[in-house]
Amino acid sequence: MTLLPLSSIIIEPLVRGALLEDLGRAGDLTTDAIIPVDRLATTVLTARQPGVVAGLQLAALAFRLIEPAIEVTTHCRDGSAVSPGQALATISGPARGVLTAERTALNFLCRLSGIATATASVVEAIHGQKARIVCTRKTTPGLRAIEKYAVRAGGGANHRFGLDDAVLIKDNHVAIAGGIQTAIARARAGVGHLVRIEVEVDTLDQLEQALECNIDAVLLDNMTTSELTRAVTMVAGRAITEASGRVTPTTAPSIAATGVDLISIGWLTHSAPILDVGLDFKAQV
Amino acid sequence: MTLLPLSSIIIEPLVRGALLEDLGRAGDLTTDAIIPVDRLATTVLTARQPGVVAGLQLAALAFRLIEPAIEVTTHCRDGSAVSPGQALATISGPARGVLTAERTALNFLCRLSGIATATASVVEAIHGQKARIVCTRKTTPGLRAIEKYAVRAGGGANHRFGLDDAVLIKDNHVAIAGGIQTAIARARAGVGHLVRIEVEVDTLDQLEQALECNIDAVLLDNMTTSELTRAVTMVAGRAITEASGRVTPTTAPSIAATGVDLISIGWLTHSAPILDVGLDFKAQV
Amino acid sequence: MTLLPLSSIIIEPLVRGALLEDLGRAGDLTTDAIIPVDRLATTVLTARQPGVVAGLQLAALAFRLIEPAIEVTTHCRDGSAVSPGQALATISGPARGVLTAERTALNFLCRLSGIATATASVVEAIHGQKARIVCTRKTTPGLRAIEKYAVRAGGGANHRFGLDDAVLIKDNHVAIAGGIQTAIARARAGVGHLVRIEVEVDTLDQLEQALECNIDAVLLDNMTTSELTRAVTMVAGRAITEASGRVTPTTAPSIAATGVDLISIGWLTHSAPILDVGLDFKAQV
Amino acid sequence: MTLLPLSSIIIEPLVRGALLEDLGRAGDLTTDAIIPVDRLATTVLTARQPGVVAGLQLAALAFRLIEPAIEVTTHCRDGSAVSPGQALATISGPARGVLTAERTALNFLCRLSGIATATASVVEAIHGQKARIVCTRKTTPGLRAIEKYAVRAGGGANHRFGLDDAVLIKDNHVAIAGGIQTAIARARAGVGHLVRIEVEVDTLDQLEQALECNIDAVLLDNMTTSELTRAVTMVAGRAITEASGRVTPTTAPSIAATGVDLISIGWLTHSAPILDVGLDFKAQV
Amino acid sequence: MTLLPLSSIIIEPLVRGALLEDLGRAGDLTTDAIIPVDRLATTVLTARQPGVVAGLQLAALAFRLIEPAIEVTTHCRDGSAVSPGQALATISGPARGVLTAERTALNFLCRLSGIATATASVVEAIHGQKARIVCTRKTTPGLRAIEKYAVRAGGGANHRFGLDDAVLIKDNHVAIAGGIQTAIARARAGVGHLVRIEVEVDTLDQLEQALECNIDAVLLDNMTTSELTRAVTMVAGRAITEASGRVTPTTAPSIAATGVDLISIGWLTHSAPILDVGLDFKAQV
Amino acid sequence: MTLLPLSSIIIEPLVRGALLEDLGRAGDLTTDAIIPVDRLATTVLTARQPGVVAGLQLAALAFRLIEPAIEVTTHCRDGSAVSPGQALATISGPARGVLTAERTALNFLCRLSGIATATASVVEAIHGQKARIVCTRKTTPGLRAIEKYAVRAGGGANHRFGLDDAVLIKDNHVAIAGGIQTAIARARAGVGHLVRIEVEVDTLDQLEQALECNIDAVLLDNMTTSELTRAVTMVAGRAITEASGRVTPTTAPSIAATGVDLISIGWLTHSAPILDVGLDFKAQV
Repeated sequence: MTLLPLSSIIIEPLVRGALLEDLGRAGDLTTDAIIPVDRLATTVLTARQPGVVAGLQLAALAFRLIEPAIEVTTHCRDGSAVSPGQALATISGPARGVLTAERTALNFLCRLSGIATATASVVEAIHGQKARIVCTRKTTPGLRAIEKYAVRAGGGANHRFGLDDAVLIKDNHVAIAGGIQTAIARARAGVGHLVRIEVEVDTLDQLEQALECNIDAVLLDNMTTSELTRAVTMVAGRAITEASGRVTPTTAPSIAATGVDLISIGWLTHSAPILDVGLDFKAQV
Repeated sequence: MTLLPLSSIIIEPLVRGALLEDLGRAGDLTTDAIIPVDRLATTVLTARQPGVVAGLQLAALAFRLIEPAIEVTTHCRDGSAVSPGQALATISGPARGVLTAERTALNFLCRLSGIATATASVVEAIHGQKARIVCTRKTTPGLRAIEKYAVRAGGGANHRFGLDDAVLIKDNHVAIAGGIQTAIARARAGVGHLVRIEVEVDTLDQLEQALECNIDAVLLDNMTTSELTRAVTMVAGRAITEASGRVTPTTAPSIAATGVDLISIGWLTHSAPILDVGLDFKAQV
Repeated sequence: MTLLPLSSIIIEPLVRGALLEDLGRAGDLTTDAIIPVDRLATTVLTARQPGVVAGLQLAALAFRLIEPAIEVTTHCRDGSAVSPGQALATISGPARGVLTAERTALNFLCRLSGIATATASVVEAIHGQKARIVCTRKTTPGLRAIEKYAVRAGGGANHRFGLDDAVLIKDNHVAIAGGIQTAIARARAGVGHLVRIEVEVDTLDQLEQALECNIDAVLLDNMTTSELTRAVTMVAGRAITEASGRVTPTTAPSIAATGVDLISIGWLTHSAPILDVGLDFKAQV
Repeated sequence: MTLLPLSSIIIEPLVRGALLEDLGRAGDLTTDAIIPVDRLATTVLTARQPGVVAGLQLAALAFRLIEPAIEVTTHCRDGSAVSPGQALATISGPARGVLTAERTALNFLCRLSGIATATASVVEAIHGQKARIVCTRKTTPGLRAIEKYAVRAGGGANHRFGLDDAVLIKDNHVAIAGGIQTAIARARAGVGHLVRIEVEVDTLDQLEQALECNIDAVLLDNMTTSELTRAVTMVAGRAITEASGRVTPTTAPSIAATGVDLISIGWLTHSAPILDVGLDFKAQV
Repeated sequence: MTLLPLSSIIIEPLVRGALLEDLGRAGDLTTDAIIPVDRLATTVLTARQPGVVAGLQLAALAFRLIEPAIEVTTHCRDGSAVSPGQALATISGPARGVLTAERTALNFLCRLSGIATATASVVEAIHGQKARIVCTRKTTPGLRAIEKYAVRAGGGANHRFGLDDAVLIKDNHVAIAGGIQTAIARARAGVGHLVRIEVEVDTLDQLEQALECNIDAVLLDNMTTSELTRAVTMVAGRAITEASGRVTPTTAPSIAATGVDLISIGWLTHSAPILDVGLDFKAQV
Repeated sequence: MTLLPLSSIIIEPLVRGALLEDLGRAGDLTTDAIIPVDRLATTVLTARQPGVVAGLQLAALAFRLIEPAIEVTTHCRDGSAVSPGQALATISGPARGVLTAERTALNFLCRLSGIATATASVVEAIHGQKARIVCTRKTTPGLRAIEKYAVRAGGGANHRFGLDDAVLIKDNHVAIAGGIQTAIARARAGVGHLVRIEVEVDTLDQLEQALECNIDAVLLDNMTTSELTRAVTMVAGRAITEASGRVTPTTAPSIAATGVDLISIGWLTHSAPILDVGLDFKAQV
């Protein structure tokens, strides 16, 4: 899947906000007191674990927003697999700015790379199957756009970005509507022609009802692999099939083997550990 | 440690921003199309794993900002240990609002409870030792105040909130300054009387130099437990001692046994998995 | 089509911003100087032209944000056809607040009702045909969500809300990509399973190429009605068909008669005149 | 009248907000997926109708905020009369940025040029008379500053920018105050020496009362041309005279012939159709 | 002069911003740690110096934004003269909220009351003369609207609120334009009928030139009282006369005696000391 | 004390906000109407009084935000003592931008220099004593960070920046807690290891109790010099001693002579008059 970029105009407020959160009212007391204003430094963002990188653009922006004189040269691209010790980017310029922005840059880079790495590990686990790994709306408040980008950097695909860009009818919607078909009919009457409709089903009987309504996709929630296999057969290409429910890298291959189109995993964005990246100082002038 | 509360005026922008991020431009298409405007629902925030709760105030605010008619009754407090199936809060009111705010409320609650749970597990691991568990600045961009709160809810304590509320002299500051004592002297000349000064030392020799300068705290970075033990003896109460460097629940007890005052763990905020909490629908009217 | 509501949390910043724009730095000099603080007034929002109403919620919010003591009682709903002289809502409370918020309330209400009225007139013109009237991204900067709502209030449907919720491949994308099928292939490789793909075609030859790629919708741009008729036949239900290009109420029926699914009209949001609504003072106490 | 410029610091937030509204969370899916990052394009903003241009600065800013490498060369100035096919500006640079910003740039440019064109048509209609055409506070929420600028570009003049920069005593103020002279006296006691006072009068009797109070301007609302003629005679230069009430290009000349100083028209900003301007692609590299 | 009120919608962002500035990231550590959440307190805002009060509305809002359960009862109005020990308002409710908001409330109240007091002292000094005391644009960045309100509370009047609500031609404008009359002509050609034009003159010769142009007001800058007297005679009611230039309460009476209409004093807003007001605790429950 | 700098990312929103406050909706009417767009000017920020400068960076930013083509060359640094007539900075570039930004630049520079000057006068008054002059939280709402910077520029030091960066237990906290030692114990149980604890004491008996708790600092409030002398003796270096209570340059020396470490003065930020600085035009091209 092509890795669509992040727009600078979207990420700048995030990076600016994170810097201001760290600077507080008085700024970087330690650095401003100790480091001479004209001291330069050359440093390298270096991977300390194997993984997949995401967020270099945000890290670079953190340095440049604090100090426009800092130059950032990247040595790999988001989506690259990296090894421990591998240099990701060189950051050169006034030492004060480098030190002040360091933590913010790393907080973005390590978190997004952690998501990309987790995604890549599941993508790798199902290599050769047609299923694609997708994320959910279980993202960090405020960071959805960049976390979904990190999933793409790891080789995954994106589900809904929010409540407004697709219909996803869940069990509670069905319960209140009094039935799947009523729920689907109401959804169809409320949205435009470019909005896809997906329905969560817990049983094959519900699946049958949903299919009668020509929906775009079905979310097969917490089904066993044998149920999934039967579901895929029933759907027979009439809708996109998505399996969900506590998928892990271990269980992913057998789920993929059922023939589903998508496997969605909340864990990628809500619980993936960071990828450890550090900033090594190479030289001070 | 007393659990100091979060100010409503601080958290409201965070919750409002997260809701708007999820609503996008068109709002909750699914719910608005399917659920009648006058339908009521009673639901329960329910733990699905054992852990420690944090963030009930943010979850409640998510529901009320979307729909002021929603009533939230909490059944436990932040910092409580909970069991799978335990009810944390009852959410009653217009079903549309409950469904629309559900994911945002859970995204806050699950993440913060995950941090509290991780913290509590390390706190429990060193039970009986004097050492306290503290977090770092390795927090999610934009969420520092509430993540540090979650650490407190888990029984931990807080380190710096930012670059401006204490001095922490790190290895690169020392290297550029040309020595620990020069760095400390410059820091002291730059900050007010209410700002504490902590110095990172990698060796006992550096520790000796730092102690000669009457600093408030020393960060003993990546030392072995035997080095830590010697460091604590050298310090002899003249400064707060903090051990850091890839601490895990497994290694924490032996580190605590060295007699250090604080053990700092970045993992609590950058890599703790969420605590699984769900919203169960009890009745629709 | 069901009229999905506007979320209060989305429209409040718009109304607040409009009020502050009008108040400037010193507020309503005229009203504050002339009207006693304890004077009450009862007023009625009254249609002065026939049309379809949209924006009552925003008008009501304008009054209540300026003065929470103002009570607003609506006498019809958004989407209602109204006659000259018909009362839309009664606004009662402190006269100062009513006078200060009047222009902002009317600016929203008249503009949105104008869009709804224009939409309804075209919808009426093609009554009995299956085609639906849709809007475009040619909206007023900052007001897209509410202008698209007004189109729905007038009986129309919505096209994309932005660049991120569907793919619409236009002539320039095709030209740069070097062909329709290349463009479609690249788009498909870049977006998730819930994103629909629509392609603009200017000729039936292009249409043929697009249909080979299983796209979701085709935008038939500036075609004659005979071309449209042939296009609909060619598509044969394999994609949604959308006609566009300077549609007017006069030309809409013949376009609809070609059998297209959608007729998109930029004019609804970029050039519709307002619906004249006034605020009549009934009594001052 | 000199066309005073728009300050960049004022318009940047408007253009930035409009771009973010269009980009949403995921940005321009179509362009990012299809157009190579290094593709360049040269395009021309071209009038498709005769009219008067306004908003070139905002259009240029839209392109440059998305992509600073884009160069914009204008071929005419705001306020110029243009013919169909006339080139207004050349936009060159990375094709992605050009395509992504196109709609936002046009939304500003077409709307403001529409207002300028409408204004110019009325100004032309009363050519040779002393009366000046002025706008009202019936502007689009959030766009008042730039819409009033567009009126100036069309040869018109501006009325109040808000509730705080002049006093305009309307019929309801008079009714509540219990008389025109009381209302004027209260207003005068409440505002500073640089604030002008204008009074709306519906009858010549009210005009007489207002003139006794030495007010700066009178708004002659919905009067016939014979009433206006008498009013101008009564005023005899003692105040600025402004005619208002559903003025059209057709009725404007006879109103101007009464000798009034100003003719105010809400229609210029609330109902003027856009001027059609398109972006023509000349070459891709 | 009537004291026009401040709109709540304008001042709320100021008060909210000031509270957040004081709370920082972690909130009121001292109060939250020490004061039980259910403790109530009754306190009184009490003048400690004689003066004139301004800003009670902002002080009350500070308490209520932190804690909606706090009740504020005012015992006097803005613009009242108060004596040392006089109770201005009673603040009752949760002790935590009272203590947390105390400093922000007082920072607004003391500063604005200081401005009102300074203004009142000059107004008193020229009692019996027709001249009015006006402020300038030399205000605290961000606080212009409320500082100009405080001047009104002290019995003064307001000059321009900004660069956009009146024309004030200063010496440098004249120098660059190449003459007073050229400058006035250009200004007149650029602004609408509701914008007044004032010209700064340093000599009686300049005054003569300005008067020939029918300007609205003249700013007589740094003139001696004998020059002012001659200037007033020359103007003979054809324009508003304003004296400026390092006016003090001591020099104000002789300036007022020259017959000028206005005396403008930057000192009121840029250098007036605060009025000391404290918060006395009466009882804790 | 080293003068730590202000971060650009922190001050830019303040300067931008102040410029927008002054520009309002329509911008600088006078300058835009009178000054040709291509006119250049060279001007000099010039002290008109003796004092200490602070805020040159904000003044420079005001000019550059309005007009990036303006060049600012500073001739001294913040913290420098200056004489009347001394040139502080040269501002060259488009005359429109210089005139439009002039007042905002001066409002920042004069206010901050006033604070620096006031601070320097008290610092000078106690020259030779070990005591340092510190400011309080009695700052202008919204300007705390830059006002505290100005105190540092004048040779003073900073107290707390807000409620969250240190504990300061005041009389009301003690009263509600029921005693100094209870209050201290609660505070200690609530805050982290990098937060210092200071206690306000009114009597030597309270001081005795506080010292038993090993607090970091004591605020000796409104004590006589003989009480202060005894307090310093009692403390004997076990805590930082701070004297407060209506200190003036006249009383400061005798207070400093008591041997206290710090003397805090609210007056520096709440009531210091500005330092008069003007903008002299040298040449127009």
